[in-house]
Amino acid sequence: MTANPVADQALLPDRDPHTAMRIASSMHATGSWTSDLAAFQRWFADCRRQVHADVRRIELDRLDGWHSDPITGDIRHRSGKFFSITGVAVDVPGGPVGQWHQPIIVQPEIGILGIIVKEIDGILHCLMQAKVEPGNDNGLQLSPTVQATRSNYTRVHGGKPVPYLEYFIDTERSTVIADVRQSEQGAWFHQKRNRNMLVEVTEDIELLDGFRWMTLGQVHRLLAVDDLVNMDARTVLSCLPFSGADLQQVHQYTGDGLRASLIRSCSEESGSLHPMSDILSWITTRRTLTEITTTLIPLNSIRGWHRSPAKIWQESELFFDVIGVDVEAGGREVARWMQPMLEPHGTGIVAFLVRDIGGVLHVLVRARMEPGFVDVIELAPTVQCTPENYACLPPAAAPRYLDEVLLAGPERIRFTTVLAEEGGRFYHARNSYRIIETDLDPLDEPDDFRWLTVRQLIELLRHSYYVNVQARTMIACLHAMVTGMPAVQAG
Amino acid sequence: MTANPVADQALLPDRDPHTAMRIASSMHATGSWTSDLAAFQRWFADCRRQVHADVRRIELDRLDGWHSDPITGDIRHRSGKFFSITGVAVDVPGGPVGQWHQPIIVQPEIGILGIIVKEIDGILHCLMQAKVEPGNDNGLQLSPTVQATRSNYTRVHGGKPVPYLEYFIDTERSTVIADVRQSEQGAWFHQKRNRNMLVEVTEDIELLDGFRWMTLGQVHRLLAVDDLVNMDARTVLSCLPFSGADLQQVHQYTGDGLRASLIRSCSEESGSLHPMSDILSWITTRRTLTEITTTLIPLNSIRGWHRSPAKIWQESELFFDVIGVDVEAGGREVARWMQPMLEPHGTGIVAFLVRDIGGVLHVLVRARMEPGFVDVIELAPTVQCTPENYACLPPAAAPRYLDEVLLAGPERIRFTTVLAEEGGRFYHARNSYRIIETDLDPLDEPDDFRWLTVRQLIELLRHSYYVNVQARTMIACLHAMVTGMPAVQAG
Repeated sequence: MTANPVADQALLPDRDPHTAMRIASSMHATGSWTSDLAAFQRWFADCRRQVHADVRRIELDRLDGWHSDPITGDIRHRSGKFFSITGVAVDVPGGPVGQWHQPIIVQPEIGILGIIVKEIDGILHCLMQAKVEPGNDNGLQLSPTVQATRSNYTRVHGGKPVPYLEYFIDTERSTVIADVRQSEQGAWFHQKRNRNMLVEVTEDIELLDGFRWMTLGQVHRLLAVDDLVNMDARTVLSCLPFSGADLQQVHQYTGDGLRASLIRSCSEESGSLHPMSDILSWITTRRTLTEITTTLIPLNSIRGWHRSPAKIWQESELFFDVIGVDVEAGGREVARWMQPMLEPHGTGIVAFLVRDIGGVLHVLVRARMEPGFVDVIELAPTVQCTPENYACLPPAAAPRYLDEVLLAGPERIRFTTVLAEEGGRFYHARNSYRIIETDLDPLDEPDDFRWLTVRQLIELLRHSYYVNVQARTMIACLHAMVTGMPAVQAG
Repeated sequence: MTANPVADQALLPDRDPHTAMRIASSMHATGSWTSDLAAFQRWFADCRRQVHADVRRIELDRLDGWHSDPITGDIRHRSGKFFSITGVAVDVPGGPVGQWHQPIIVQPEIGILGIIVKEIDGILHCLMQAKVEPGNDNGLQLSPTVQATRSNYTRVHGGKPVPYLEYFIDTERSTVIADVRQSEQGAWFHQKRNRNMLVEVTEDIELLDGFRWMTLGQVHRLLAVDDLVNMDARTVLSCLPFSGADLQQVHQYTGDGLRASLIRSCSEESGSLHPMSDILSWITTRRTLTEITTTLIPLNSIRGWHRSPAKIWQESELFFDVIGVDVEAGGREVARWMQPMLEPHGTGIVAFLVRDIGGVLHVLVRARMEPGFVDVIELAPTVQCTPENYACLPPAAAPRYLDEVLLAGPERIRFTTVLAEEGGRFYHARNSYRIIETDLDPLDEPDDFRWLTVRQLIELLRHSYYVNVQARTMIACLHAMVTGMPAVQAG
């Protein structure tokens, strides 16, 4: 070896056990559920009095700042930024529906969804925001510290700077806990990715109006409340790196049943039905064998859809419409803008079937193809559908395991909450999220389903394009159940 | 929990320590280098007598089975399969070269590159093949068991079936050791991926002419021979999952110096300059900040390139040409075909700078953008270039650290071999692969460079799109150096 001035350079282990342990402690720090919830609700009601959002539907053709291309019909912002709506032709040779057309949102720029965490009195707290978005049917929801599109933070809209954004851009001011680009709804977005970040800050931070420090345990418990924790907060929370071994130590939980099985499912030391190399090979196989071709086409050439000055809709009047909204949001900042949105029909059902296998909780994931995915398939919940839509589709398209979810007795429903999807693009898009205990035979797996432990999903979430956004919401809920969230009574 | 018929289901650990240990043993099983090499050379010379390949350059416009589209100029096979050559426009705002056009190969189907391994006398052996490819300037090279494009194995070319392919398709007949789609040359291919597989077979296998069982140690040592182990074999070998802890146990190597530092670099127990979460965040940052837009355009619209009936070339006469070849390969099967190929100018230089940091070998990787990558950047060797090409480019484009590689004294050159790139698409494409020891300050890292351990690279190779094909060749060479390959004298 050459002379070596850095022979004694301190090297670091791959994971920081101190951070994992502090995350476990913050997950456990729920305080008193009743008094916490009451304090939170007072603050949230206060925020609601200070802000308002007035959202009116208007005709697509009357959106200030947006225009439809006279040749293609594509809908774009006059700045060329934000997003556009175009058409897509999807070919799935051999699929139950072999070919279809639909509108799709194109938003190539990568935004930041970020939560700042900071130690307060020895416990990690998350800086959460009460934020209004036009698509929320209840206005205000609990959001991450920052939701910034690239257009936002380069100030294309000419608005105020995004508060706290500097901690995610200037990494000298913070320590990164998680930082990974993740996909969003592949049925509605073309290859959309956002950067999901958790950063820890040690310097003093001014607490602005509409923001609140909360422990992970407190945020987790609010996941059981309908329409409260927004999608962006849920996807960031799902990327939390924590260790089941630390959880066991912090919780000192020695009970039996689902919760004990779930804690073991988060641990590196527990085995799994399939080793990770087999799961990765299964994903490779599904991505190699699944044939799907998606081609962006002009919005006015999509077959099976109608367009009036007011909206775009599918001829069956199912799936979703493209509509326009006129938004006036007031309070801390006053802003008025118009934009197109996607309005889905019906409330979706998103469910994980879970079961104990060999003492360790496993969840049944599906290798699901969506036209907007970057890499063919991602791992999705066992069931993810809007049942009404199947009225116009062939029987072979009906989602497997839907009956197992819909017919589950109350004793098998371990979690159920109705949660909203992204309120900046989707109008009143809501899904009923459920975790259902099952006694299906785990050795009888269809080709596109596999049983995974929670730890295997946590490991895959360090990388892009493995776990879809609906599954990420369910993983945040599973994290929450680790600390014994009283799921059903709060729902 | 519900009644549980599988409460005592045996669960599996994430990695199979038995397989990792057997891989380490096979890496160590080099036998006697001199007698092994002599036996191998006899077999290989024998193969060479039994096969021949007659490759003649012919005009692009005279390729039987291929035609140029009269409107776009794109070159396609009459079946619509195999691959096509089209143009690409690349925009890199702020880059030293902000915009350029070039021809690019489009091959959307995912092929299989696979090596069968089998225990013989208690040691894992690889089934290697002596295979002729038209682009090899020495005809025969050592190849994996199987190299099959989807067109190959669906028999579009009407040829014979690919031997041994069934073990990669029918996973009932084998156990998967590695299975991951990896990119190929992003400068010449548009989003090409191949499936890299290692499968273990226990049943008896007939040894066909032109195939040979070899230990990992034997194949590794041949990496030090110029133009022998082909690119497809190298990329599959780079995906070997093995553990540094097992290596230490098998080798019982207690020496000092580069080899000891390298063995520690393969171990899960050694730390690293940057924990994996920081490396993943750095990759996310580079992928978010790097702006590159690539648009496929008609081949006859690319600026800066000329086309005659014979070939396509860049006006500087640098980079590469697109040529035609007429191939007659004989021996076990006789086949004659014509095809277009890319013929690069000059021999490239591909080098990893390596150094000991805190007792653990680190390699300096670059986050490199290539127009054909699926996801913006991949990790590449410290230097990867053809020096002649920079004659016509601005000085800012000159590759960083090239002098460190070119001016390294012989005592710092720990590995050097000239190896060929894929002989099915590239004509006489060769790179000088080098591993150079350096004493650069590891704390002075440019934004697009980071020091990683070998284990961190092994971990990233479980997933797609992290490590480019040139870096994968270098990783296979680093694996080989673990067992003390006599690199320079064999080169």
